[in-house]
Amino acid sequence: VPEPTFTRTHRTTHRRKKERGTHEVASVHEILDEGFVCHLGFVHEGSPYVFPTSYAREGDVLYLHGAAANFALRTLSAGADVCVTVTLTDGLVLAKSAFHHSVNYRSVMVFGRAEAVTDPAEKARAASAIVDHIVPGRSLDCLLPTDEELRATLIVRVPITEASAKARAGGPIDDAEDLELPHWAGVLPLHTVADPPEGAPGYVQSWRATR
Amino acid sequence: VPEPTFTRTHRTTHRRKKERGTHEVASVHEILDEGFVCHLGFVHEGSPYVFPTSYAREGDVLYLHGAAANFALRTLSAGADVCVTVTLTDGLVLAKSAFHHSVNYRSVMVFGRAEAVTDPAEKARAASAIVDHIVPGRSLDCLLPTDEELRATLIVRVPITEASAKARAGGPIDDAEDLELPHWAGVLPLHTVADPPEGAPGYVQSWRATR
Repeated sequence: VPEPTFTRTHRTTHRRKKERGTHEVASVHEILDEGFVCHLGFVHEGSPYVFPTSYAREGDVLYLHGAAANFALRTLSAGADVCVTVTLTDGLVLAKSAFHHSVNYRSVMVFGRAEAVTDPAEKARAASAIVDHIVPGRSLDCLLPTDEELRATLIVRVPITEASAKARAGGPIDDAEDLELPHWAGVLPLHTVADPPEGAPGYVQSWRATR
Repeated sequence: VPEPTFTRTHRTTHRRKKERGTHEVASVHEILDEGFVCHLGFVHEGSPYVFPTSYAREGDVLYLHGAAANFALRTLSAGADVCVTVTLTDGLVLAKSAFHHSVNYRSVMVFGRAEAVTDPAEKARAASAIVDHIVPGRSLDCLLPTDEELRATLIVRVPITEASAKARAGGPIDDAEDLELPHWAGVLPLHTVADPPEGAPGYVQSWRATR
């Protein structure tokens, strides 16, 4: 059984190093689920804008949120074309030659038309999904948004239908004649770690914070 | 003596939470120097594109590079308007209420017109700067690019003149009436760490790799 894949378009066709690209739905979803900050690109009055923002995936929909007065979200909720990119950096690749230095990464690009979520139930679900994407289960251990807070929040939906992923993994790929050069070559793996939680001073904390 | 600042434009004027924004040159440079992957936004045939790529800053110039056949770089080298965004994520902010959850971050947006670097000496300098930005001093401990490799590399220059930074730091900011709710609230600090270097198998390694 072949893996489900996104139909490629001129925007999601990999032009170079095609072997590093995929249109498999599962690969795209996996990267979107591992990241938690996306870079949201859109055009306003002819200029490109790229804003970092948090997001969540629910099935084949990406939710982005912000204050109702948020410039990027307001532009999007009018129905703008967007490119949402999520990038995970896995390592620095040091080759014998400067030319073959690289970065190990996994990234996804989603192209589509954003639209504002207006249904209150979908808005509430999306708001919980965004909190849960940052800390799994968190929406069950905090105060849910009030109706007023939801009205003050703009949530936009981007369908995940025109999407692709690209990744580099593994060590350096040097030219054969450079392999015996004395320089160190290899990978410096990178990952993001969380330090111990810092409870907010002056807050009444639950047992989770005090033990 | 006031800090040198970038002149604000309609694109770099902070619209919301202005107190989190700055146009100070030093703050913008600091964030650009700490990051190593930027998100490059541009418009092609009416569509926004956002690509992750490595970069380096030299004074008030940002250098981006890629293969001569690279789609993004080719579009840029024709003289495209870009928005280059660098984002550092410093922590997850968990509040008593879902609504006040947030992310601690520092980000920079640089707007400008990209242009291809054609002078061979500037290209060589920029190529070294990009390698050194990933691992300081690395350009002195690897094989420098040959003329042929430099010709196969496209380097574009973006002036850092229309730029701003924005940051959030510190704990959650809940509404007063929610402070005694039993949920844990505080910050989960995040940072990126490097695991031990993984030497490339089959390569002759220098002393740096073997001790």
